[in-house]
Amino acid sequence: MSHPYQAKIYVTLRPSVLDPAGTAVRSGLTHMGYTNVEQVRIGKYIEVSLTAENEDAARQQLDRMCDQLLANPVIENYRFELQALSAIA
Amino acid sequence: MSHPYQAKIYVTLRPSVLDPAGTAVRSGLTHMGYTNVEQVRIGKYIEVSLTAENEDAARQQLDRMCDQLLANPVIENYRFELQALSAIA
Repeated sequence: MSHPYQAKIYVTLRPSVLDPAGTAVRSGLTHMGYTNVEQVRIGKYIEVSLTAENEDAARQQLDRMCDQLLANPVIENYRFELQALSAIA
Repeated sequence: MSHPYQAKIYVTLRPSVLDPAGTAVRSGLTHMGYTNVEQVRIGKYIEVSLTAENEDAARQQLDRMCDQLLANPVIENYRFELQALSAIA
């Protein structure tokens, strides 16, 4: 039997990779008067609803989905939090 | 005296707003064999390093920055977590 889960996935650029979009946002904030902002890094936040037999199966599948599609392992890191929806319903 | 803080900002589309990118990713996952994925919603994850007099000042400023630049209040929600960097150094 499969159970519903929700995953919150955070995809971030590796620290060694330049982030031109983040630099542009930081520059924009500085021009707006927020001169105390030192660094901005922009990543992705992805919410995935899925069903799986158990939590381990869901985690394994999410790892594969991140490696294959959701993140670019060459330049990005990812991490995720998994929540069983039935437990909070 | 100002202290260093790091904010983790999550910008998500309001639930009533369609997410074509999320739908495309879900369709891609389905074609890759992940047929148990029910919904995908894509948002932004922004890390901001800044200095502020205290936590309240930092939170007020982050609210303004989100309303003015980082999020579009018409279609997006945001929330953030604030961490004093000196406390974890």
